[in-house]
Amino acid sequence: MDERQIEEIVDRALAEDWGFGDVTTRAIIPAELEGKASIIAKAHGVLAGTEVARVVFHRVDSSLRFALLLRDGSEVQSGVTIAEVEGKVSSILRAERVALNFLQRLSGIASETHRYAEAIKGFNARIVDTRKTTPGLRFLEKYAVRVGGGYNHRSHLGDGILIKDNHLAALRARGLGLKAAIALAKKNAPHTLKIEVEVTTVEEAVEALEAGADIIMLDNMSVEEIRRAVKSVGGRVILEASGGITLDNVRAVAETGVDLISIGALTHSAKALDISLELEASSH
Amino acid sequence: MDERQIEEIVDRALAEDWGFGDVTTRAIIPAELEGKASIIAKAHGVLAGTEVARVVFHRVDSSLRFALLLRDGSEVQSGVTIAEVEGKVSSILRAERVALNFLQRLSGIASETHRYAEAIKGFNARIVDTRKTTPGLRFLEKYAVRVGGGYNHRSHLGDGILIKDNHLAALRARGLGLKAAIALAKKNAPHTLKIEVEVTTVEEAVEALEAGADIIMLDNMSVEEIRRAVKSVGGRVILEASGGITLDNVRAVAETGVDLISIGALTHSAKALDISLELEASSH
Amino acid sequence: MDERQIEEIVDRALAEDWGFGDVTTRAIIPAELEGKASIIAKAHGVLAGTEVARVVFHRVDSSLRFALLLRDGSEVQSGVTIAEVEGKVSSILRAERVALNFLQRLSGIASETHRYAEAIKGFNARIVDTRKTTPGLRFLEKYAVRVGGGYNHRSHLGDGILIKDNHLAALRARGLGLKAAIALAKKNAPHTLKIEVEVTTVEEAVEALEAGADIIMLDNMSVEEIRRAVKSVGGRVILEASGGITLDNVRAVAETGVDLISIGALTHSAKALDISLELEASSH
Amino acid sequence: MDERQIEEIVDRALAEDWGFGDVTTRAIIPAELEGKASIIAKAHGVLAGTEVARVVFHRVDSSLRFALLLRDGSEVQSGVTIAEVEGKVSSILRAERVALNFLQRLSGIASETHRYAEAIKGFNARIVDTRKTTPGLRFLEKYAVRVGGGYNHRSHLGDGILIKDNHLAALRARGLGLKAAIALAKKNAPHTLKIEVEVTTVEEAVEALEAGADIIMLDNMSVEEIRRAVKSVGGRVILEASGGITLDNVRAVAETGVDLISIGALTHSAKALDISLELEASSH
Amino acid sequence: MDERQIEEIVDRALAEDWGFGDVTTRAIIPAELEGKASIIAKAHGVLAGTEVARVVFHRVDSSLRFALLLRDGSEVQSGVTIAEVEGKVSSILRAERVALNFLQRLSGIASETHRYAEAIKGFNARIVDTRKTTPGLRFLEKYAVRVGGGYNHRSHLGDGILIKDNHLAALRARGLGLKAAIALAKKNAPHTLKIEVEVTTVEEAVEALEAGADIIMLDNMSVEEIRRAVKSVGGRVILEASGGITLDNVRAVAETGVDLISIGALTHSAKALDISLELEASSH
Amino acid sequence: MDERQIEEIVDRALAEDWGFGDVTTRAIIPAELEGKASIIAKAHGVLAGTEVARVVFHRVDSSLRFALLLRDGSEVQSGVTIAEVEGKVSSILRAERVALNFLQRLSGIASETHRYAEAIKGFNARIVDTRKTTPGLRFLEKYAVRVGGGYNHRSHLGDGILIKDNHLAALRARGLGLKAAIALAKKNAPHTLKIEVEVTTVEEAVEALEAGADIIMLDNMSVEEIRRAVKSVGGRVILEASGGITLDNVRAVAETGVDLISIGALTHSAKALDISLELEASSH
Repeated sequence: MDERQIEEIVDRALAEDWGFGDVTTRAIIPAELEGKASIIAKAHGVLAGTEVARVVFHRVDSSLRFALLLRDGSEVQSGVTIAEVEGKVSSILRAERVALNFLQRLSGIASETHRYAEAIKGFNARIVDTRKTTPGLRFLEKYAVRVGGGYNHRSHLGDGILIKDNHLAALRARGLGLKAAIALAKKNAPHTLKIEVEVTTVEEAVEALEAGADIIMLDNMSVEEIRRAVKSVGGRVILEASGGITLDNVRAVAETGVDLISIGALTHSAKALDISLELEASSH
Repeated sequence: MDERQIEEIVDRALAEDWGFGDVTTRAIIPAELEGKASIIAKAHGVLAGTEVARVVFHRVDSSLRFALLLRDGSEVQSGVTIAEVEGKVSSILRAERVALNFLQRLSGIASETHRYAEAIKGFNARIVDTRKTTPGLRFLEKYAVRVGGGYNHRSHLGDGILIKDNHLAALRARGLGLKAAIALAKKNAPHTLKIEVEVTTVEEAVEALEAGADIIMLDNMSVEEIRRAVKSVGGRVILEASGGITLDNVRAVAETGVDLISIGALTHSAKALDISLELEASSH
Repeated sequence: MDERQIEEIVDRALAEDWGFGDVTTRAIIPAELEGKASIIAKAHGVLAGTEVARVVFHRVDSSLRFALLLRDGSEVQSGVTIAEVEGKVSSILRAERVALNFLQRLSGIASETHRYAEAIKGFNARIVDTRKTTPGLRFLEKYAVRVGGGYNHRSHLGDGILIKDNHLAALRARGLGLKAAIALAKKNAPHTLKIEVEVTTVEEAVEALEAGADIIMLDNMSVEEIRRAVKSVGGRVILEASGGITLDNVRAVAETGVDLISIGALTHSAKALDISLELEASSH
Repeated sequence: MDERQIEEIVDRALAEDWGFGDVTTRAIIPAELEGKASIIAKAHGVLAGTEVARVVFHRVDSSLRFALLLRDGSEVQSGVTIAEVEGKVSSILRAERVALNFLQRLSGIASETHRYAEAIKGFNARIVDTRKTTPGLRFLEKYAVRVGGGYNHRSHLGDGILIKDNHLAALRARGLGLKAAIALAKKNAPHTLKIEVEVTTVEEAVEALEAGADIIMLDNMSVEEIRRAVKSVGGRVILEASGGITLDNVRAVAETGVDLISIGALTHSAKALDISLELEASSH
Repeated sequence: MDERQIEEIVDRALAEDWGFGDVTTRAIIPAELEGKASIIAKAHGVLAGTEVARVVFHRVDSSLRFALLLRDGSEVQSGVTIAEVEGKVSSILRAERVALNFLQRLSGIASETHRYAEAIKGFNARIVDTRKTTPGLRFLEKYAVRVGGGYNHRSHLGDGILIKDNHLAALRARGLGLKAAIALAKKNAPHTLKIEVEVTTVEEAVEALEAGADIIMLDNMSVEEIRRAVKSVGGRVILEASGGITLDNVRAVAETGVDLISIGALTHSAKALDISLELEASSH
Repeated sequence: MDERQIEEIVDRALAEDWGFGDVTTRAIIPAELEGKASIIAKAHGVLAGTEVARVVFHRVDSSLRFALLLRDGSEVQSGVTIAEVEGKVSSILRAERVALNFLQRLSGIASETHRYAEAIKGFNARIVDTRKTTPGLRFLEKYAVRVGGGYNHRSHLGDGILIKDNHLAALRARGLGLKAAIALAKKNAPHTLKIEVEVTTVEEAVEALEAGADIIMLDNMSVEEIRRAVKSVGGRVILEASGGITLDNVRAVAETGVDLISIGALTHSAKALDISLELEASSH
């Protein structure tokens, strides 16, 4: 992760939570009061975003001491201390909510990804994410997917050729089909990128293979259909299962032999991992 | 909602999804091809974020025609068309994912809030949100809560006095208790803001009332305790139930007579509402 | 005050004063020349903005040594040294004007506020500011008001309900009056905010109290009218005198027993406090 | 004035006044209510900033109709209508304070400059401003000075060579005097810029002339000394009087024959011109 | 190209050329004077950047009429009119230099690329660019390369796997060679990206092919060596010639049968195409 | 140069080269691997931009050790080491291309300027730049010109009065000529700026001198004409030769006795200086 990018996102989140200042703390907490806080997991999951949390505390007050006890990727249980922060109480309180908001969301994504990755253990398939991420947080969320044991699909429209149903619908109006689409992509796209195409039947998958696709996305197919597609074209092309995949059926999908299993819910519907901050002020 | 704020967030999301351009569309879609797309609900829920979606399409290409068929707050069923967009296919494809990402998340929050609001129908209590929002999207998410029938708690640290457990822990180190904290707030805080304090027992609630709190947050109390607190101090102060509230117990909490029920999960753990875009290109 | 916010404002001011560089210093001052400068008050007043001045010097050149001799809130006389800066002469000269511009304006506001606060010494009333601040500098100017012994009114449109004459004029077109306005506010506004309403007669003040206003602004009333309003509704509601208040009549207004006296001129018309920087270069 | 620069400053001011929205208007004003407002002078002065006010209204809501009745530079009396705005009441109320804050400050500066310009009518001297401007508003404030009949001095450190007392103090440590400073400037500075030097005695003025200065600033000299300086070097160099100049003595200074009279108070201490907005809602 | 990205770059360039305003035009050109200008090629080349030029004029003044007579990709001769602009003279003069700076640079790049593309006409190879672009202008410069008939290589570090000499040097310290590097890339990199590796001998090219590279960059090889590499591995992998390629030898390189010829000088050393603006003011 | 300005430009360039991260390095380089790199000249020229390069490395990773062996302005030969960087290999690789892009361009400009400055050695004339700079990099490029031994002309439209052919064409429509233009400039322009006018004949030069111009630009005149202009008006006004000047004829132009020779190609068409980075990883 890139420090500048993190700082930019953190600064925005801090500004959003600030208004014209923390009126509560200003009214009741002595400016010089020092204290120590623990960041504690309140549920079981996989930790992600500790570096972001550290940046939050340091952007608020560079004199805070932040000690990380666990690294991203660690499995935590409720009650485990993740990190400790010491310094001005007013600074800790000002950073608290923003730091936790990042940590809870990213750990929620890492935890959900981990559950999927565990579910397919022993198979070759990779769990991959999608572009269905929270606006403004994509690079952090894609990092959290990697922390949880998943892999990244395209980052954005610029780093992968993915011919989807809507592209094909558009070309159809011009009398062009799947093969023509793949041919155009081979002719015009940057040579550094593989060409992926979305299909909905085994027949289309075969057609795509013959047209020279590098990756074929099997969209919303049943496990049985995916199995047939693997038999027909597997090994000669990368196969991605996509759509309708849950923790209940992911292992069955992996068993078909597909290479990639993409899951939008990793980023658009993961629950936050419960994490809190507990403060003790120094008595002196 | 404020157009400038929406544009700023939308621009950021578009940039993040862009890289150096949509290589797929550039490679295979004729630059001048026109088409029409429908935005369609794929599940049941409450719609929110249509104005943000419109801004996404117009920031990408101000010549797109965007027709909204349903307004924010409408209940939708799977299969219902929410809006239609017409114009250049390349523009529609470039805006698609970002527009849907906003719409799915905000509608997810509105839908979840709506479920809570429906669950307590007939009681006086308001469902309220928290500061546990997605970094960078707070003002949109708080809007979605209102669309779903909820109310907003503090927007940020600057528009409400809320004395929490960590403030009290900090003051305790100086030998100060709940009463002293409330007295300090009354003395130093802006006169436009009410003073809220978090308590964990009925006794503390009584103490807070006597010290002059305007609002008392009953943190993680059982329904029975909340009922006792309402009996002891209700009517003379605004009472807020907070912590551990789910769709299963929210009606019981409302029955106690509390004024506010705050739920972090509205924003930190709502599932996205499934919504998709379907394109037809013009044949001429 | 928040370091990030200060830096953002300071960077903008430095950019504005920079163009493509300090052509004078570049032409005539040896790049390595070191020196020492004193920041000196040239008039009597209350100091505010020393932290902003420090940030200016450090954003220009983080190797400058900045020693603060007096803190914000100190009363200064002409000739008193406020701070000393040591390091590269070219850096000191580049920061000089911007640092002084902040210091002079903020100290001007603190000084003017202090004069008002002194004028009502012994009475209960608070001197409060308004939203009539310099565009772009509001949070600094509201800080300067606090330094001078004043209190802040609303920071912006989001942290206080204030029903003004123009709101009432708008509602009147719908056949709605003061009571209806207050009722709407109680029904729809966030529960964390008090409800303030502007009135112009004692009768309206009584009506506002009965309708449940938390704060009543007595707009442009004479001292005699304010006294009557205090008698009629004082004690049951917070009363704010506003409009036409000067150093000449502020004590008389305070004597009426109002709780708040708001003065736009604190921020829109305060004179700068005269402060200058004097440099000595090292001879070695 | 440049539209982009105005928009950037306006957007910042709107953001600062916004928080998470206008809670009062949202709570009590029907979203679709339309109205008409007049912007009215409440005191005598010279108008400046009407274009900025227009941008404020249009950035808030581009559908507002803004009709300007008077142009920048017009003299106004109390009661005169400056402009009219029609459209959504909620938009007008959201823009009101920010538009007035710009208009009052810029008109205040234009009015003060105008008083100085009038005071020296009939003489050759120009009233000029300084870099003692409000951080972040310099280009608007320098525009207001021109509107009021003044001229601009340097915009920033990059568009004029001005050798000041602190430069000379710095060079003295290296054993260099006024002549050496001017010689260095002639050798190293861009050829497009004139060379100005600050002096405190008539003798130094003569020395500066001989060394080749293009402009000489007579700093804090008495009217009598300025007169002597004009006699000694006038006509062969541009002479600028600076420091301690007020409306009481400015005419006497102009009578000496100096070319420029610079006054920091034009921008750092001008009082806001009183201007207000009055709203009428449509009854239909 | 994306309108938002263009506007952002254009605004920055306009700000940089502006300072506090066009003092010349303000001093001597009547504010309302209208005129018409022609943008004219002064040399032979390929046009690129006309859309950027249009944005420059419209960001300065949205009321200017900009008529494009030639499209990007057109070959121009000296004397040919590219576009015409009509409207306020002050706006045209303010936009002139910035519009030309973009147009000259981008057309310079397109022209240089075109010369290379013409030189290899008839062969299969593509001319491709590099990341050796002007800081801040990469996406425009890569667009200009496409306009000139070239293709884009990686846009940035995120959209292509390219294992270069420095990566291999780094791994060597760990005892790892070319094969290990490729294996790591296959294991860890996103599946959407092809894997390219830089080699300096034919033997390494063979090794890279066997290790599974998708693209092999032949770095600084002689034409003879490139020919041998094509014989050894051509057809089974994409081959890219890189380093030391000029207009003099590019055809010989293409004749070897390589797929890609990358040339840093397209963007880092292309000469500007001479283009100027000529104005006529209206006499009425 | 100003650190803030450099950082802003550097951050933009880093963002542009980053996408969502360096996928190659992430895939194959161990995160903790340390190494050392040398920045080495590959051609003869004058170095410029080392401070910018340092900022690039430190913005990427503030823990990198950057040791500069040569300063800006040094003449380098192929093979000479300019700087050394030590620290994390992943950080060095991420900064490499951006640092080199700046260094190569700025050194290219300094080298080209140096060639011109050397060519006129012994004459009085200064080599000066123009506003024909790369959009977004002007202040760095003007710095590189100074490093190469040149001088800066106007930085932007705000720091010099330059009446060009297009201004004169515009005024002609109003029946105004050269003299009227100069008179308007003297009347309305800031007194700190000299007045320059572009002429195309010796007669116009004489006219401009008589009208009071401070600087006269001789546009696209032959060496013979320039010589005549120098004879006619030299000594009483600053003379600038402009247009069509190359390394072949610059000495002849200087011999005429003009004061300034301006050359757009210094910034718009200078070739990059070849510079590369070579890495060694630590074996431990």
